[in-house]
Amino acid sequence: MCRGDDVNCPEFEKHYRSFREDLSAERRGFLKGGLFAAGGLAAVGGSGGLSLVTPALAQATAARTPGQPAYHYLPANAETVHWGYFSKSLPPRVEIESGDIVTIETLTHHAGDDLERMVQGDEGAESVYLWTKDTKGVDRRGAGPTDPAVYKKGSGEGQGVHIMTGPVYVKGAEPGDILEVRILDVKPRPSANPDFAGKAFGSNAAANWGFQYNDLLGGQKREVVTIYEVDVTGAKSWAEAVYNFKWVPQTDPFGVTHTTIDYPGVPVDHSKTSRNFDVLKGVRLPIRPHFGTLGLAPAEADFVDTIPPSYTGGNIDNWRIGKGAVMYYPVSVEGALLSVGDPHASQGDSELCGTAIECSLTGTFQLVLHKKADLAGTPLEELDYPMLETQTEWLVHGFSYPNYLADLGPDAQSVIYSKSSVDLALRDAFRKMRHFLMTTKDLTEDEAISLMSIGVDFGITQVVDGNWGVHAIVKKEVFAARVS
Amino acid sequence: MCRGDDVNCPEFEKHYRSFREDLSAERRGFLKGGLFAAGGLAAVGGSGGLSLVTPALAQATAARTPGQPAYHYLPANAETVHWGYFSKSLPPRVEIESGDIVTIETLTHHAGDDLERMVQGDEGAESVYLWTKDTKGVDRRGAGPTDPAVYKKGSGEGQGVHIMTGPVYVKGAEPGDILEVRILDVKPRPSANPDFAGKAFGSNAAANWGFQYNDLLGGQKREVVTIYEVDVTGAKSWAEAVYNFKWVPQTDPFGVTHTTIDYPGVPVDHSKTSRNFDVLKGVRLPIRPHFGTLGLAPAEADFVDTIPPSYTGGNIDNWRIGKGAVMYYPVSVEGALLSVGDPHASQGDSELCGTAIECSLTGTFQLVLHKKADLAGTPLEELDYPMLETQTEWLVHGFSYPNYLADLGPDAQSVIYSKSSVDLALRDAFRKMRHFLMTTKDLTEDEAISLMSIGVDFGITQVVDGNWGVHAIVKKEVFAARVS
Repeated sequence: MCRGDDVNCPEFEKHYRSFREDLSAERRGFLKGGLFAAGGLAAVGGSGGLSLVTPALAQATAARTPGQPAYHYLPANAETVHWGYFSKSLPPRVEIESGDIVTIETLTHHAGDDLERMVQGDEGAESVYLWTKDTKGVDRRGAGPTDPAVYKKGSGEGQGVHIMTGPVYVKGAEPGDILEVRILDVKPRPSANPDFAGKAFGSNAAANWGFQYNDLLGGQKREVVTIYEVDVTGAKSWAEAVYNFKWVPQTDPFGVTHTTIDYPGVPVDHSKTSRNFDVLKGVRLPIRPHFGTLGLAPAEADFVDTIPPSYTGGNIDNWRIGKGAVMYYPVSVEGALLSVGDPHASQGDSELCGTAIECSLTGTFQLVLHKKADLAGTPLEELDYPMLETQTEWLVHGFSYPNYLADLGPDAQSVIYSKSSVDLALRDAFRKMRHFLMTTKDLTEDEAISLMSIGVDFGITQVVDGNWGVHAIVKKEVFAARVS
Repeated sequence: MCRGDDVNCPEFEKHYRSFREDLSAERRGFLKGGLFAAGGLAAVGGSGGLSLVTPALAQATAARTPGQPAYHYLPANAETVHWGYFSKSLPPRVEIESGDIVTIETLTHHAGDDLERMVQGDEGAESVYLWTKDTKGVDRRGAGPTDPAVYKKGSGEGQGVHIMTGPVYVKGAEPGDILEVRILDVKPRPSANPDFAGKAFGSNAAANWGFQYNDLLGGQKREVVTIYEVDVTGAKSWAEAVYNFKWVPQTDPFGVTHTTIDYPGVPVDHSKTSRNFDVLKGVRLPIRPHFGTLGLAPAEADFVDTIPPSYTGGNIDNWRIGKGAVMYYPVSVEGALLSVGDPHASQGDSELCGTAIECSLTGTFQLVLHKKADLAGTPLEELDYPMLETQTEWLVHGFSYPNYLADLGPDAQSVIYSKSSVDLALRDAFRKMRHFLMTTKDLTEDEAISLMSIGVDFGITQVVDGNWGVHAIVKKEVFAARVS
């Protein structure tokens, strides 16, 4: 059925209206949650000088796009996704005005681990995962070579793994601007297989790129995939394991054998695995639905591996990037070119074993463009890193290399995998938090440093994405009484 | 006035009774908080298999020390503190039975930064900080040499800096046992100077051992001390800065000049500093009163620097080690020899600049000894690291070197300062959390690793204590439905 996104549907008007009404209800709930001040484009965070968007900036931004926000729907299918890379040269899948709202479906790149639960019957997912001996729904999977004479793993070589929906083109966006991304809603994608009605599923792979891989007891090396069930009714706030299996060599439809998890979307043949359903009995993992990879196309290269995060965001893998959160990104190319993927039902700080609960989700976003000309004197003026705002906190994201594409030279995309450390990421997080406190709160360096030691918590975001991450969290209440 | 701790006081009985009544009120509040199950020695954590102390172990432990817990009070003064080191050869300051309750005063080693606010009029603190050209209240400050022919900074050389109250000798404790330390209460120590009645104060030093020191803007090197005010009435849940000053060379009463902060307790002469009272205006730091250094004497050496944390605890610097928390330590020497110091009004994860809000506190603890013979088959059986339990979470503490005294050979106490990294501490935290999940919850390694990637948060405890720390947090609710 058309969800208000198919203008050729005979009942398009009705469906669109119905969807808008649903959305309005959701937005009202969100508004009540206190994140939004009144007015569609007003600054988040309410009063008290607690938003990064000053009243003057909010006004300037609103003046540039008068009128009501439009609504867009971007489904996930073989036509709307790009797999494993960001690219400034991709044609937009949807073009929007600043302030518009867009619902974006995202698909996990781990659905091949259980096609029955995560793909079967799902038209969009089936079109993306389609892979026979003659054809692939999406051929390129990664930023690597696509020449069959070169690749050994598959087209794109899996140098970048995430299924990204987009890009969304924001009209008027130019390098130097800031794109504010408000996450209005996040919902799990129900299984389309009637055998699993009312449920959603995700996969957790303890993979070769995980922190544990070379440190297993007894010196063994193995990859283990655990399938989790996620409730879609909202009645349960936790996920539970269904079964796990040890990865065994899998031969893809093109005849390439994958002895490890080295290429995304390989359909797992469970006649070759041994499934263990006696797993994590009674263990309930609190869900934290969020987007592991959300960001803008960088200017530095044509095809950019989705795995390492960078200054335009991407694979930050912070579980706080969920419903009610707001991200701020520096725009690097015309149109901003936002893409979303790597949906997670839950993840811990560090994403230790290499993945989260990788589970398809649908998000609703409002994108607000702040033009460079309006930024002078505001906290967003010098922002050259991706910044997260929740209702109660601000977070900066430090990486081993803040802009690895520029920092590491022409071989950056391969070199990054051997050069990361948590120590480097902490260094970057420290510098960014210092910058944030000095620019947004007008603190001296000494004030910022004292505050950081007492009132800022540094956590390990991830140690599995090439460019490792440390985040720094400061609570907004720290500044509730400050006038500046 | 005697607080029920001076048997020679003519009104001792009355004071002791009054104190016990106050304490009972506190304990009742704590009990209501749900941490304790019924019975003084019953396992914490309530039902549901969520405590590390199994019912059988609780019973065995209780059977060893029948009768009511006794109460003890250990004030802080020159006779009851040791400065800068743990030592297995220290005579006990109080001897207790398992299950007894002891209130322990602790003094910050940064009170010299503002003697007027943090020492003046306080008999205990004055006796500890006493330092004239002829005498020192506490001469040795650190695990270093005390021979005047050798030292340049002062006796003990400041190789270890914390003022530690204790040790507390737990009767019957032997290596192989586990000491459970329940923190029943934590209170700031009010300033004894009538000019500052009703207030407490702490010092935050952005010091030469901080993460920022070699990374200040403009390449400068400086140490800056900020004095904070902490409310003692409980009406305010935050601390506020009073003033800051840049460290300038200070000559101690013995004539040694300290160009940097290199020796603890140097009385700062504010006629030489320039105090800036226009600092962090309107910034409110949420308070998190806790003990930075709490632990047992290790067997490995006679004098052990208090700065690097290790398997017997010590300077873990986790702000969650506050009221309502429970610590478990492996006993390394006869009597366990617990000492407490390094009190903090607040700290962020990382303790970035080298210190917290260093503020004298008084804690009330219940110490419960679990004998090795009773541990078989319980989650505490193999515990060889310090473990933290709060009402809702379990935490393991990873260090760059889990037992650096044994790991790094005879020069461990100096070598450790150049060998730490967050990456190493994360490695240790991963291994400890794996061990914890496998032994306490009977998970397989694969189950533990999947759970860790999804349901465990890894944070940076501190990067300033020689042996750097990463903690891993798992919520108890994850196991609420598990039967094992």
